[in-house]
Amino acid sequence: MAKASISKILKKKSGYKVEGKLWIEFEGEKYFGPGPVELLEKIESTGSLNKAAKEMNMSYKKALKIVNSLNTKSAKPFVILHVGGEEGGGSEITPEAKQMIAYHTSMRKRFADFLKKETDQIKKP
Amino acid sequence: MAKASISKILKKKSGYKVEGKLWIEFEGEKYFGPGPVELLEKIESTGSLNKAAKEMNMSYKKALKIVNSLNTKSAKPFVILHVGGEEGGGSEITPEAKQMIAYHTSMRKRFADFLKKETDQIKKP
Repeated sequence: MAKASISKILKKKSGYKVEGKLWIEFEGEKYFGPGPVELLEKIESTGSLNKAAKEMNMSYKKALKIVNSLNTKSAKPFVILHVGGEEGGGSEITPEAKQMIAYHTSMRKRFADFLKKETDQIKKP
Repeated sequence: MAKASISKILKKKSGYKVEGKLWIEFEGEKYFGPGPVELLEKIESTGSLNKAAKEMNMSYKKALKIVNSLNTKSAKPFVILHVGGEEGGGSEITPEAKQMIAYHTSMRKRFADFLKKETDQIKKP
């Protein structure tokens, strides 16, 4: 379909923007997106699911739910939870988690390009 | 950036899907998307903002707020509200509204193509 111009419909300002959200689902449920990325990165930087959850103002229970979802919906776990020990455990993310974060970053880059193109398009005379 | 394969990270099933939402903003506020489209189409089919709101299980107040937002954030009104008269008014959508709906449909088609391509990509070996 030819891209029609809608510039006459819009006010003569540059205040319009095409915006959106993007995520990956597994069997109809949210699986991966910006939320899990942030949690995984904070687990990596703090070495602890508990600290990561606190930094995100999230309950430990909710953070654990996200981790369990990531671990069961992926071929291999994204997070290893070490239980007990002197330091009371600690958590780490796996190479698969890092690979997924990198892939997600490139996918979001393509989405940002899409949004930019569409924003340019609605402003085209 | 080269599109890396993440098929080894994912379960060997076809249950993964890239999903998203898309809308147009004006000065940082939501302006146009699937909700306004549905409301405009129902105003057109019923000839009444009140009936359109009822069909969407939406309060008249909320529907009016959406209409006012569309009318003030566009160069020309999208909805004409006829007040009073024998039938107690009635409402109609303008050619600009119809043009915007058509543009939005083509934009969503491009977004669906984007999501399909990204979904194919995550499944690629």
